[in-house]
Amino acid sequence: MDFILSCIEANREIYKLLNDKENLRDKCEIGFGGDISLRGDLEAEAIFVKHLSKFGQIYSEESGFIGEGKDIVVIDPIDGSKNFASNIPYFGSSAALKRDGKTVGAVVANFAAGCMYIKTESCFERLSFLQNKREKIISSPLHGIGIFEKAYSSGELSLKLCQSSLKYRSMGALALSLALSHEVDFVLFHGAIREFDIAAGWYMSEDLYRFENKNLLLVSKDKGIFDKIHNFIMELSI
Amino acid sequence: MDFILSCIEANREIYKLLNDKENLRDKCEIGFGGDISLRGDLEAEAIFVKHLSKFGQIYSEESGFIGEGKDIVVIDPIDGSKNFASNIPYFGSSAALKRDGKTVGAVVANFAAGCMYIKTESCFERLSFLQNKREKIISSPLHGIGIFEKAYSSGELSLKLCQSSLKYRSMGALALSLALSHEVDFVLFHGAIREFDIAAGWYMSEDLYRFENKNLLLVSKDKGIFDKIHNFIMELSI
Repeated sequence: MDFILSCIEANREIYKLLNDKENLRDKCEIGFGGDISLRGDLEAEAIFVKHLSKFGQIYSEESGFIGEGKDIVVIDPIDGSKNFASNIPYFGSSAALKRDGKTVGAVVANFAAGCMYIKTESCFERLSFLQNKREKIISSPLHGIGIFEKAYSSGELSLKLCQSSLKYRSMGALALSLALSHEVDFVLFHGAIREFDIAAGWYMSEDLYRFENKNLLLVSKDKGIFDKIHNFIMELSI
Repeated sequence: MDFILSCIEANREIYKLLNDKENLRDKCEIGFGGDISLRGDLEAEAIFVKHLSKFGQIYSEESGFIGEGKDIVVIDPIDGSKNFASNIPYFGSSAALKRDGKTVGAVVANFAAGCMYIKTESCFERLSFLQNKREKIISSPLHGIGIFEKAYSSGELSLKLCQSSLKYRSMGALALSLALSHEVDFVLFHGAIREFDIAAGWYMSEDLYRFENKNLLLVSKDKGIFDKIHNFIMELSI
């Protein structure tokens, strides 16, 4: 799929940029999504626009809509910008191609770990930047660890998970965490849902147990864990 | 310092092992620290023992005390084993040299991000595995993000942080997070404190505002944030 190949090229270029250039953590203006854009966000956006404009109209966290086209290319040039700014090594990018409102291909990159997650209608794979090694992703056994993004703003839900001994990480880059949904016990997010944060990652979890409403996402490969957390959400009327 | 050079060599060997070998996520027996050791933990331990035994008696999470010596080399061969098992890219190693009960040199590696944090009495630096680039670490400005390790087991403290809008990540590898204490707003940990989890990381934060008791660590570069969280700890009698 040409879209996937162009995403891989764009991500390789951004990966190189982030490793080579110095002042990418400088703050610039407030972006379309409402967060302050870093120089790195803007330079990564320019690289995506260069590689992906030919596939449709771009919809980006930094600049909103760019160009024209029937299909929509939804991008978050740097997912986890605050981690990037703080040298917390969990940040990447997210790109999805939407046709008639439906996602048909997506790539999530983790620039800190040097790998990409690639999904189309026929494959779901991890590709290493350095080794060029491709692995098919399948649901792994439970390891006793989930991911709860934005736990810090959901005190009551944190307390519920704590009381039922559900262990979690809170990593700070939603697309990257959704791309891990086959490998961790669950992924939970509570906060404002924005298209560019989830278009690619949510598509990657489409074969698992899922629930979404206007300010929450829950996905798990395990029905028992899914039901337990879903019950908390109902109890708290989130 | 010879100890640091040997740690760097050992970490390079483990980094290569983790990138090249397949079955390192297999579970083996329960280790000295009480957690199940993975094959990767044991192979990483063997590499540390090979490189570091000449500096003193090894004290390791996997096997307890190994060998003899006046000085003590405290190691956690894989810090963040559960992340490693789940493909969450935040895991590394921790090694510290203790002389007369005092840490005199330490290296924390992040194998997922490919870098090491090195501290002696005269330097504190980050070294990239791939680029061999060294950077001096200094306290960065506040970015609005701290790290709260084991947040999942501290519901009440999570609720307090939430109520006072202190944003955090919960990454799952304490030594790695302590090594970031100059770059994030705070690092907080609540749980059983074990020597091999903190010997290297805690030493790296020695010039910041700190509090410790038998089951809690708090460090911040900012006096206001430190005081605020310290007050919560007192209120909750943790």
